[in-house]
Amino acid sequence: MSGRGHGTSIGIGLLGLGVVGSAVASAVISSRKNGSELNLRSALVRDPSRQRAVKLPQGTLVTDASAVLDSQNVDVVVELMGGEQPAFDYICRALSGGKHVVTANKEVISKHGEQLRELAAENGVSLQYEASVGGGIPIINPLLDDLAANEILGLRAIINGTTNYILTQMATGGASFEDALSDAQRLGYAEADPTADVDAFDAVYKISILARLAFGVSVPFDVIYREGIRRTAAQDFRYADELGYTIKLLAAARREDGGLLVRVHPALVPANVPMAKVEGVLNVVEAEGDLVGPLWFQGRGAGAEPTASAVMGDVRRAAAVLRDGGSVPQARPIDPDLSLLAMAEHECKYYVRLTVRDSPGVLAQIAGALGDLDISIASVLQMDADPERGSADLVIMTHPAREANMQRAVERIDALGVVDTVANLIRVESYPDDR
Amino acid sequence: MSGRGHGTSIGIGLLGLGVVGSAVASAVISSRKNGSELNLRSALVRDPSRQRAVKLPQGTLVTDASAVLDSQNVDVVVELMGGEQPAFDYICRALSGGKHVVTANKEVISKHGEQLRELAAENGVSLQYEASVGGGIPIINPLLDDLAANEILGLRAIINGTTNYILTQMATGGASFEDALSDAQRLGYAEADPTADVDAFDAVYKISILARLAFGVSVPFDVIYREGIRRTAAQDFRYADELGYTIKLLAAARREDGGLLVRVHPALVPANVPMAKVEGVLNVVEAEGDLVGPLWFQGRGAGAEPTASAVMGDVRRAAAVLRDGGSVPQARPIDPDLSLLAMAEHECKYYVRLTVRDSPGVLAQIAGALGDLDISIASVLQMDADPERGSADLVIMTHPAREANMQRAVERIDALGVVDTVANLIRVESYPDDR
Repeated sequence: MSGRGHGTSIGIGLLGLGVVGSAVASAVISSRKNGSELNLRSALVRDPSRQRAVKLPQGTLVTDASAVLDSQNVDVVVELMGGEQPAFDYICRALSGGKHVVTANKEVISKHGEQLRELAAENGVSLQYEASVGGGIPIINPLLDDLAANEILGLRAIINGTTNYILTQMATGGASFEDALSDAQRLGYAEADPTADVDAFDAVYKISILARLAFGVSVPFDVIYREGIRRTAAQDFRYADELGYTIKLLAAARREDGGLLVRVHPALVPANVPMAKVEGVLNVVEAEGDLVGPLWFQGRGAGAEPTASAVMGDVRRAAAVLRDGGSVPQARPIDPDLSLLAMAEHECKYYVRLTVRDSPGVLAQIAGALGDLDISIASVLQMDADPERGSADLVIMTHPAREANMQRAVERIDALGVVDTVANLIRVESYPDDR
Repeated sequence: MSGRGHGTSIGIGLLGLGVVGSAVASAVISSRKNGSELNLRSALVRDPSRQRAVKLPQGTLVTDASAVLDSQNVDVVVELMGGEQPAFDYICRALSGGKHVVTANKEVISKHGEQLRELAAENGVSLQYEASVGGGIPIINPLLDDLAANEILGLRAIINGTTNYILTQMATGGASFEDALSDAQRLGYAEADPTADVDAFDAVYKISILARLAFGVSVPFDVIYREGIRRTAAQDFRYADELGYTIKLLAAARREDGGLLVRVHPALVPANVPMAKVEGVLNVVEAEGDLVGPLWFQGRGAGAEPTASAVMGDVRRAAAVLRDGGSVPQARPIDPDLSLLAMAEHECKYYVRLTVRDSPGVLAQIAGALGDLDISIASVLQMDADPERGSADLVIMTHPAREANMQRAVERIDALGVVDTVANLIRVESYPDDR
């Protein structure tokens, strides 16, 4: 499309004025000082009387979404409400009304991205969502734009700051999951209902967005293998450490023979690889392209100002289109030849923690059950024997095995009389130079 | 500008068909399979009869630059010759002729970027140079585009793969500089004349380009403090290791009180920070923005295919402008209030390696010379005493001091009768969580 030319004022309408919205409002207002053409026209809030960190011009706060979505003064709608509804409806209305849209809403983009991209194209406007993944880290636009000539081979990421904070606390302080979660909640890193983070819905939304953009494949969020961190216990960190690993919640998507495998789960990561050292609320995305090789993008994955940085990058791109014409980078088309692989196809080494009867022949029975499914044992640690209860922890590291076989083996092991419980099964992430 | 619309063919002309040019040619040709509108029209070479890795259509190879620069068929000129001339003249001719330009030429952009940006603007075409810094790592476009709303506070980078390879060999294998250089030359990581790399001209070109884009300040490459790695000796690595550091060639630019300080020199980097672990030919750029906080971009800083990845990102942006209109992201305007600080203003801890007479009172004299200039000693190592010659190595770590004072102190120490030579002075890089 052709633009309006220089000197035009570009109207911004905000949906939501929480901490991120306030940071975005501040950035828009302060950009005026550098001669930017951006003008904050309206901001949808629930309670206009509430005290806010940012001072907005009189009349900016509105309580009726139509004052943003239907205003002739608003060119770019910035959606920062979060949640599926009414955000999704509002974005649809904005696009249909010929407004450019910027959103940080991973749930909406993960669930409805394809439909929204089409709606934007039909209406000749842009839809951007850099802040939906990785907070302030530029990752979506680099995938769309800078790396467009690459076939992406794989992505691997730590993209949920809450769980990475909790896991880091557990790794360094020996905290239990429950204590680390409470701590995160107290500091505002985790919500009162932590489900979205600790059960890994958030990470699944994000990897589904990245996978769509990187591989040209539509990945419905509910077909992605998803396992959160609730089962991860203090002793898993102790045993992992003993074996030379730490534990991270990884989100990964990789081309394998026959298709694309997308997965989110806790993983043992070798303590000497860089990803093991990405701590606290930091995020990282590793991307491997056929031309560029491996790339590493790291930064603050959450927080008002990092998110505002990403939102403002999108806003300025939308403003450039309004001013100069042209378009923003588009998602690559869907690749009809790339299919999704089931988690059952995954192959890796496994860490298995069992509570067993402290009696002779236990290991033989377990090794037998594994061997029946072509799984061989790499090492065994017997830990924390409890003579009173006559039980002990047993940690088994396997050689690479197929997920389908491992799951069947776990069922069989769980049914053995000598095994109290298979307390945890954690996949071991493989790295090119596993040392 | 408004575009030509979809379905147009976009003609690419290459200047140079070495390993990078061949990789770009391959990428253009193979992009046709995915329905791209890019067409390779001509490639300037010296010797058209030479055998090449890439098979080009008949008639593509030309030996006269005019066949690229003046061709009506060429919309985008891709300059991959390297060196200042004739590359600079060719780029000027291409821009003046209304052609979009993509270049990987750090020397030309460092020395003539301002003039070329103006020439591009006058002619309504784009000038892009993502591949000039960091090989395949997306760093220039993220600075221009994604981070545009940030005030950049600092950049710190390892942006010369050759020297990082040499320093890594010295750190891990105990090699001398000369042996590590020969090794790098044998493997094709260093050129027969290694000056551009080991004397840090290459890194200076690159940081001057990044500083212009990040801070809106024109940084003539010849005013940047430049120190290469020739003085770095095997024993410096041994002593640094003993003190908990490694040695890296850093390129940095940071806002300080009163202005911007830009510098390129070897530095002691704490062994436990991530930058210490960026090894071999990898590059990394740390960027800190006021909104986004610290970001980390890492990847392959050189090589035909990574460079082609960056070049193709630029080519596709130019193609989008030709097709859809609009513009590519522009460098921020020059900030008239930001001045450059001289290296004399720098403040850091220092590592000083001296060869001294092995006699009493030596340290007192040295400490006195330092104390006279307000420099206090943090620790002293006496190493490698040579009883036959009656000399020893002395390594002094200082507390933070001003560069101007340190340089004067070194002169005075060098003049002391008990000091054979001040063999090396290496700045210690400071990190927020120096542990």
